[in-house]
Amino acid sequence: MSAALDRSKILVQKFGGTSVGDAERIKRVAARIKSYYENGYLLVVVVSAMGHTTDELIKLASQISDNPPKREMDMLLSTGEQVSVAMLAMALHEIGVPAVSFNAQQIKIHTDARYSNARIEKIETDRLEKELAAGRICIVAGFQGIDEHQNITTLGRGGSDTSAVALAAALHAKECEIFTDVDGVYTADPNKVQGTRKHERISYDEMLELASLGAGVLHSRSVEFAKKYGVVIHVRSSFNFNTGTLVVPEEQIMEKLLVSGVTLKSDDARVSLNDIPDRPGIAAEVFHALAAQNINVDIIVQSTGKDNKNTISFTIPHKDLKQAREILELLLKNWGTGSASFDENIAIVSAVGVGMKSHSGVAASMFKSLADAGINIEMISTSEIKISCVIAKDRGREALQIVHDVFGLTQTA
Amino acid sequence: MSAALDRSKILVQKFGGTSVGDAERIKRVAARIKSYYENGYLLVVVVSAMGHTTDELIKLASQISDNPPKREMDMLLSTGEQVSVAMLAMALHEIGVPAVSFNAQQIKIHTDARYSNARIEKIETDRLEKELAAGRICIVAGFQGIDEHQNITTLGRGGSDTSAVALAAALHAKECEIFTDVDGVYTADPNKVQGTRKHERISYDEMLELASLGAGVLHSRSVEFAKKYGVVIHVRSSFNFNTGTLVVPEEQIMEKLLVSGVTLKSDDARVSLNDIPDRPGIAAEVFHALAAQNINVDIIVQSTGKDNKNTISFTIPHKDLKQAREILELLLKNWGTGSASFDENIAIVSAVGVGMKSHSGVAASMFKSLADAGINIEMISTSEIKISCVIAKDRGREALQIVHDVFGLTQTA
Repeated sequence: MSAALDRSKILVQKFGGTSVGDAERIKRVAARIKSYYENGYLLVVVVSAMGHTTDELIKLASQISDNPPKREMDMLLSTGEQVSVAMLAMALHEIGVPAVSFNAQQIKIHTDARYSNARIEKIETDRLEKELAAGRICIVAGFQGIDEHQNITTLGRGGSDTSAVALAAALHAKECEIFTDVDGVYTADPNKVQGTRKHERISYDEMLELASLGAGVLHSRSVEFAKKYGVVIHVRSSFNFNTGTLVVPEEQIMEKLLVSGVTLKSDDARVSLNDIPDRPGIAAEVFHALAAQNINVDIIVQSTGKDNKNTISFTIPHKDLKQAREILELLLKNWGTGSASFDENIAIVSAVGVGMKSHSGVAASMFKSLADAGINIEMISTSEIKISCVIAKDRGREALQIVHDVFGLTQTA
Repeated sequence: MSAALDRSKILVQKFGGTSVGDAERIKRVAARIKSYYENGYLLVVVVSAMGHTTDELIKLASQISDNPPKREMDMLLSTGEQVSVAMLAMALHEIGVPAVSFNAQQIKIHTDARYSNARIEKIETDRLEKELAAGRICIVAGFQGIDEHQNITTLGRGGSDTSAVALAAALHAKECEIFTDVDGVYTADPNKVQGTRKHERISYDEMLELASLGAGVLHSRSVEFAKKYGVVIHVRSSFNFNTGTLVVPEEQIMEKLLVSGVTLKSDDARVSLNDIPDRPGIAAEVFHALAAQNINVDIIVQSTGKDNKNTISFTIPHKDLKQAREILELLLKNWGTGSASFDENIAIVSAVGVGMKSHSGVAASMFKSLADAGINIEMISTSEIKISCVIAKDRGREALQIVHDVFGLTQTA
């Protein structure tokens, strides 16, 4: 570790694939970075692959194989970010700012060996600190790492967020700025709800729940990482200089809202297994079979009926419905009893807030407000800081606004 | 070095960008590699970037800068080969052959730090030997290396040939096979001359002269490398299984031909500087100024006239004519005397052969044969194993056939 570096001046910034989608946009990002550089910041900039590069590489591989080896897929995909970092470094040079690009092999971003879904274990900082000390901006390829044998790994969708947070942790940076196309984290999606407010601060745990509920601002693993290492994330717009939302430890939030965010998820389907045997291990059998095919199950409700028969209902992504149907029909055939039903016309409306921990009655308020509007709740799932309700899809938008209103989040102009 | 490896079974094979131009071609290359694998060879396969990838990346960079930093350019261009190696490894897996891809960082192909034109200094073989011993084919990205600080370098046009030869040297491989679109090295270009013959063997020195005369089968630096380390190069077709041409030390050639190859180069122009001062340093001044702009001068003839005036004539590539004209006009202006003339309508016909070393009269035969046909020789240049004549461009093809005939190279069917 270089003693000369003033860590309070180190900023890690992350720009996504849309921000570096073509040469013009890369130039715009470079101009923005220059303004920070001129203000004396020591900058490490993480970028994703340009625009649709990753999708195009996946398409290229599909011309060779339907099921390419994951190691080779990661080797292929990691080139996308390497192109971006070189282009951005060139753009900075072009406007007179010294910059140098790096891939994960050069920095040594160590991960485990889980190709396509690797986890960062350790980042070496020698080279970065040397370059920062020399007054150069470091442009680092996001989304990628290396395992202990120098094989290239990738971190999964949204992995560049995690690269940025991990670099900020390793460098003890002041902050990790995630530039995106929104101004920060809102109480709900402003495109779907009226009177939403932007948070100045939100806790790691709330952000984690919101991320997993599909409020797609941040990749959930990056938030886990930030929580673990106490990295302050600043979610802000790449189009303006407004302050965005800081994602921080819960202790740093003064006013703990009962509910800080409301979300609507419309890409799930409900599966019900009716009249299945009521014996130990049945649920495990079902969810094990689904997990083996990488099908993510979200909300689960089980109820015991009469005559030793059970009903299990759960939600899965639409896209996995066909595969789940095949798996479940096989299970039903083996059991020799029961039936499966599927419902694609559902939505999940959720409320998230750390304030729930210390307040009762939050769930009741939510249920009542929906009931008052004649919206039927089909399934319920709760955690310490989250309540989710499965409702009919065609009432989703309405339910979202109702819940946003009932918890006092709605601003009147 | 692994003791278990039978080096006589190690083959290094190189496939160029055209051979891996799209998914279908990559599959064809994979099928070919499989046939060697099934015959018990231990294979290291070097590939170039797919088709026009490198040109496309250069175009992408040009949207950012007219003069991008060379380090970043190499970072960008090296992604092309990384895509190819991943794709080829996938294609091999798809047909049941274990293969693993590597970039230069993973193998550790050490070069000097001359970005865009680096020279290979050392190649580590541990990983390759381990994979070969485990029965896997190693697919290695050509054209690239790393300097001592892990920066990515590239080896210049045709650099993948050099990567392949250097790998063959480092691994003490049996042979380095360069797959191309011709069957081997011919006495002349079969598309331009009738009755050409394919060489079974040709010496490094002849191949070097032929390469620099534009017989584009091999990159000249790869031949230098092969000569230095005694690597046998096998130039052969990627379209059939015919034996091609072996490039070997001169000692291994039994029948030393007086002339082994005849070439025609039509992309040069002649520049003459007339009535320029006859004083020391004038020639140095001219060629230094041209070299500073990376203009390659080929044949040079200087003659002293009367009144302390000189004439210098030389050939340069067409493409550099405009730039050379500017440079020379500036020099003439400084000298205050002399004039420049330019002739684009020239061709260079050359004969190459190690047999020339021990035989006189070769040049005379060549001059006489051209004279007999009424072809005027404008300039002459010779080396120990080469004679070049500058003639009128519209007589080029005819001269090529005449020289091919006069040295007894022409086969009658």
